[in-house]
Amino acid sequence: MDAQLGTDYHKRLKRYTAMVQGNDLTCAGALTDPKGNRSLKPKQQPDKDVYLRVVDENKKGIVVRGAKSMIGGAIGSHEIIVQPGTGFTEAEKEHAVAFAVPMNSKGVMQVVDMQPGGERKLEDGFDKGNVNFGSSESLVVFDDVFVPKERVFMNGECEFAVDVVTKFVLLHRMVLGGCLAGCGDVLTGAGALLAEYNGLSRQLSDRLAEMTYLSEALYSQALGAAYEGQPTPSGVWFPDPLLANVTKISVTRLPYEIQKIAEDIGGGMISCMPSELDLRNPKIGPLVEKYYRGLHGVTAEKRLRVARLIESMVAGPGRLGALCMHGGGSPAAAQMTVRQLADLEKKKDLARTLAGLSAAS
Amino acid sequence: MDAQLGTDYHKRLKRYTAMVQGNDLTCAGALTDPKGNRSLKPKQQPDKDVYLRVVDENKKGIVVRGAKSMIGGAIGSHEIIVQPGTGFTEAEKEHAVAFAVPMNSKGVMQVVDMQPGGERKLEDGFDKGNVNFGSSESLVVFDDVFVPKERVFMNGECEFAVDVVTKFVLLHRMVLGGCLAGCGDVLTGAGALLAEYNGLSRQLSDRLAEMTYLSEALYSQALGAAYEGQPTPSGVWFPDPLLANVTKISVTRLPYEIQKIAEDIGGGMISCMPSELDLRNPKIGPLVEKYYRGLHGVTAEKRLRVARLIESMVAGPGRLGALCMHGGGSPAAAQMTVRQLADLEKKKDLARTLAGLSAAS
Amino acid sequence: MDAQLGTDYHKRLKRYTAMVQGNDLTCAGALTDPKGNRSLKPKQQPDKDVYLRVVDENKKGIVVRGAKSMIGGAIGSHEIIVQPGTGFTEAEKEHAVAFAVPMNSKGVMQVVDMQPGGERKLEDGFDKGNVNFGSSESLVVFDDVFVPKERVFMNGECEFAVDVVTKFVLLHRMVLGGCLAGCGDVLTGAGALLAEYNGLSRQLSDRLAEMTYLSEALYSQALGAAYEGQPTPSGVWFPDPLLANVTKISVTRLPYEIQKIAEDIGGGMISCMPSELDLRNPKIGPLVEKYYRGLHGVTAEKRLRVARLIESMVAGPGRLGALCMHGGGSPAAAQMTVRQLADLEKKKDLARTLAGLSAAS
Amino acid sequence: MDAQLGTDYHKRLKRYTAMVQGNDLTCAGALTDPKGNRSLKPKQQPDKDVYLRVVDENKKGIVVRGAKSMIGGAIGSHEIIVQPGTGFTEAEKEHAVAFAVPMNSKGVMQVVDMQPGGERKLEDGFDKGNVNFGSSESLVVFDDVFVPKERVFMNGECEFAVDVVTKFVLLHRMVLGGCLAGCGDVLTGAGALLAEYNGLSRQLSDRLAEMTYLSEALYSQALGAAYEGQPTPSGVWFPDPLLANVTKISVTRLPYEIQKIAEDIGGGMISCMPSELDLRNPKIGPLVEKYYRGLHGVTAEKRLRVARLIESMVAGPGRLGALCMHGGGSPAAAQMTVRQLADLEKKKDLARTLAGLSAAS
Repeated sequence: MDAQLGTDYHKRLKRYTAMVQGNDLTCAGALTDPKGNRSLKPKQQPDKDVYLRVVDENKKGIVVRGAKSMIGGAIGSHEIIVQPGTGFTEAEKEHAVAFAVPMNSKGVMQVVDMQPGGERKLEDGFDKGNVNFGSSESLVVFDDVFVPKERVFMNGECEFAVDVVTKFVLLHRMVLGGCLAGCGDVLTGAGALLAEYNGLSRQLSDRLAEMTYLSEALYSQALGAAYEGQPTPSGVWFPDPLLANVTKISVTRLPYEIQKIAEDIGGGMISCMPSELDLRNPKIGPLVEKYYRGLHGVTAEKRLRVARLIESMVAGPGRLGALCMHGGGSPAAAQMTVRQLADLEKKKDLARTLAGLSAAS
Repeated sequence: MDAQLGTDYHKRLKRYTAMVQGNDLTCAGALTDPKGNRSLKPKQQPDKDVYLRVVDENKKGIVVRGAKSMIGGAIGSHEIIVQPGTGFTEAEKEHAVAFAVPMNSKGVMQVVDMQPGGERKLEDGFDKGNVNFGSSESLVVFDDVFVPKERVFMNGECEFAVDVVTKFVLLHRMVLGGCLAGCGDVLTGAGALLAEYNGLSRQLSDRLAEMTYLSEALYSQALGAAYEGQPTPSGVWFPDPLLANVTKISVTRLPYEIQKIAEDIGGGMISCMPSELDLRNPKIGPLVEKYYRGLHGVTAEKRLRVARLIESMVAGPGRLGALCMHGGGSPAAAQMTVRQLADLEKKKDLARTLAGLSAAS
Repeated sequence: MDAQLGTDYHKRLKRYTAMVQGNDLTCAGALTDPKGNRSLKPKQQPDKDVYLRVVDENKKGIVVRGAKSMIGGAIGSHEIIVQPGTGFTEAEKEHAVAFAVPMNSKGVMQVVDMQPGGERKLEDGFDKGNVNFGSSESLVVFDDVFVPKERVFMNGECEFAVDVVTKFVLLHRMVLGGCLAGCGDVLTGAGALLAEYNGLSRQLSDRLAEMTYLSEALYSQALGAAYEGQPTPSGVWFPDPLLANVTKISVTRLPYEIQKIAEDIGGGMISCMPSELDLRNPKIGPLVEKYYRGLHGVTAEKRLRVARLIESMVAGPGRLGALCMHGGGSPAAAQMTVRQLADLEKKKDLARTLAGLSAAS
Repeated sequence: MDAQLGTDYHKRLKRYTAMVQGNDLTCAGALTDPKGNRSLKPKQQPDKDVYLRVVDENKKGIVVRGAKSMIGGAIGSHEIIVQPGTGFTEAEKEHAVAFAVPMNSKGVMQVVDMQPGGERKLEDGFDKGNVNFGSSESLVVFDDVFVPKERVFMNGECEFAVDVVTKFVLLHRMVLGGCLAGCGDVLTGAGALLAEYNGLSRQLSDRLAEMTYLSEALYSQALGAAYEGQPTPSGVWFPDPLLANVTKISVTRLPYEIQKIAEDIGGGMISCMPSELDLRNPKIGPLVEKYYRGLHGVTAEKRLRVARLIESMVAGPGRLGALCMHGGGSPAAAQMTVRQLADLEKKKDLARTLAGLSAAS
């Protein structure tokens, strides 16, 4: 937004940021509206609330109604910062609203997603795959929530909505490249462990190299987008818009290749494993141990832990695809941006020059 | 196996088949051994039981010990038919064993797999995605199980083991093509429904056509493999060995493309949905209904049901990948078979002819 | 067309077919019009001749003007059979014309294409790659050509135009699958020879197996399309329309993978080879021999011949891509047909059933 | 090489570089040996000359014999700089030789490659596609060439050979990413022009966006590799070794996708065009003009020029594949390097941590 929004908004945003940092508060960022019928514009929707909006306003603040979808990490956040999820026209300015409220504000409700295998996150054991960390996404509902004035950052200034969205997603789309490269590293490591446990490290080295290639290709793209970034007048840097969107498109492709190789390397086991309860069972456990053991010294538990880690990333809980495909916006949104930024005129000039055609051809 | 195994075996097999059919019994087929250290041959394994084997024998029958992995549908079968999972040498003939026993025989135990989202199969609602059908795979353990002589079909005739395996997987590898084409149809239909519910049918028609292409390409390959099949002396037909393995390789590739498009079309919703409990909750339910509703007349439940169906096929329970990647053998096994059947000499001759080289070049 | 066109037309077609067969004449088939501005319909074109049309007619016959593009094998054909290249409305019926004329008729002219490396086809040596066979395509111009009545098969019956086109391309699209599978076999054989000549057969066996897989996948798809074919009332069989178009789409994809592997296996040599003139040169020749020799007994000529064969298929003359991409119609045309034949309603029903939704949902 | 090679060598190299720059001389760099039987090491080759080597030496200099393959731009270079093409052992030290000589030195001979369509480069017209620039590669033979001592930079110091090769290819492999991204831009521009000429810009915008994505993905990877570069003690920077090799692997994949889309967009015309001679012919020319014209104002020549440009990049002369696949080393070489630099141990640790396994597991 930089200098475009008025002084008051910036003061409020700055004060809010200082407050959040001073109190060690965690914040979730919320963009995506439920959208209802996607072939209709916001002002055509039968239920206007499918795009979050201001329904009342007084001197002390505003009242908002609506919801934001797919808010990652909301369950673990003290605060939620709401921004417009798309551009809005003057006639739709009630939706051009940005603010922050504590998660436990009156009228804020979360409907947490239910992931495949998500129940295991309530257990102590290793069947959840990733035993240390997890993720969740929520529908956050704003049921006539009052927002005091000093926590409102945009209220009807629809001319800035697109810029806010664009800046947000740029960072997200670039960062995903690095993030998924890291996930790729974990899958590669897990694949390498299973290969080792099965005595197949040498035979599978080609496929592990391919996984490494795919992860690093993603990482290098994200780096390129970052290094080509430019500062805004506020001093904040943003990645190159074209390359950040290019990275996002790669994020919808390469990790799928990585996880497919992990599944291939991991063997049939990835898809049909006994649970930890079976392993701990006095009668069944020894049989599971006997028939799931790997090389000398590799217990069934070791193999099952690593296989569950792969399973959790391929299928859930914590499935990579959930992050890759629509995280930071849909593939179609990134492709549309690439189309807009492609500068075909310049490319046509290059072709004309080499083909011996004059510039006007 | 046809006429190669002795008369007694065939008599037993025939009698067994008649018994099974006469009593409407369901049978699971079991091939894959746990294999332990995969860089060692069966006779080198520290624990010989990682390949199922005969540990005792008397006039009345044999005693077997070991396990079979990833036995689809075992939980719903009356009987289990065990076959060798690979070829064995004379020195490994104790593993060349084929037989059938009732699932509730003394010493037979099943460790059923725990799938992502598998817990939902115990619930009544729609969160399991596919509300009518499900699948499961088991480790079936044979803890010194006695098999009466008339139920033993192979016992040490290691020279026939490879043929038994090959014939079994040929059918499996071809059939998978048709089966996954059907799964592709379901995903295409589900994608088309969600597109319709969101008002995006026209915009997504290209991607639905691509899904159709991928499913039909798989189907047509399986048909080709079947039509080129040959009868054996017994009268049973088997698909063309090369084309059946080619179909299997495609099964490890095309369905992944199909499910990726389904995930793309389905939107972020596929990866973060409220559960049916939320929808039925008196307080939360109306909000879920309000914000998950689609076009006029499309309830949240409709959208959630179809999205859960996609989720179940992409992530679980009933994840397609579990079937595609290692069902009917690993990709590596199919690739190895293609290499063996490739007849490079004939292809080299074609190239020599066109390049003007004599046959001996 | 079967029984739909009037009796006269069929009589003429039959008589023509008998004449051609009786005289051992070769015929080229011509469909594709130049089309001019593709965003305009035939009747909107500034120059109506960009779709071939009837410009005059009398009792003895018709006069046609226009051209047909990309007519494979025209240069070696005695006759040319012209058909409509797309559907036409009543207002465009002048373009709905089908006939056959000898290639040397007054007013028929051919402009033969110039392929990369095409000049080598005029030489005796092996630099053309395929030393036995070649291909060429022509623009065939009809500059007010008179066609006697008995050689006219359609003249204004625009209601049959689409059917004529559809039937023609169905066969073409299916047959391409088998044809390109054969080209894939040649490339695989050539790759295997070069691997052998360089002493790398073992190291490259994986890639040769992948080439085999790709060729056979194509072949099996074409077989499926053929086997599912149906007879028409005339007794002529046509392949399954959906599967034939699916095969065509695969033809625009898999052969590109095959030739990429051939290029990879072949090494840098594929892209920079001395010519046969260098090899035959008294001074340069021995050096070429010395440095292009392979394993013991493998002369430079052997390696160059096989490398040139690969080059010819990858780059020209006779580049595979020229056949794969637009032969039998563009990828977009095949994709549109798949979209039309996809029967999404049936697929939606499958999804509804599994998701527990009623048929009307 | 930096500081590792002795002072004398560096002095000579420096003096040589100054001489070259002072005289505006162009230099070709030569690495790749013919290699003969690739399953044998240099010292096992029946003809040792298949790896260039020192065959004589005296106080004034050395005499070298052998050849270097695929030397891009050799035909336009004043000088040639020869380096080892691989590592050599002490027993093979005769091959560890680096030097520079004028191209017209006694005993230096070039055998220039013959590309598909290469003959057109001798013509004035536009059939060569790229009317301004071209490329060529040569086999450069050294038939007992004397190299004075001050032009010898390495002579038997085999311990530095690998480092010389590695540094050379690192730069090459990174640079290719940027170079091919540029070629991608040209193809995208040419595709956009043809789409415009045919009145199909809107319909093809998705595919043009995909071409842009592919080119930029390549570019961003190369940028990442460059930015992560490190300086050597000499002050020269080299790209990150892992990312540079990753970029090279992408170069063997993405440009093939780009050119496939160009071929798709370009239509059948790309593969069968009349030559410029036809267009200039008084009788044929007007027909070519009539039937190859595009939208209002788009002459046949414009369309042919742009189509020939695409053809030249897809098929030749100047085929992209010739650069992509083996330029800077084979795909296999880059994959091997990625395997070596993958640091699987670190990745295994990541997986162990998340799976709750101790570091030693």
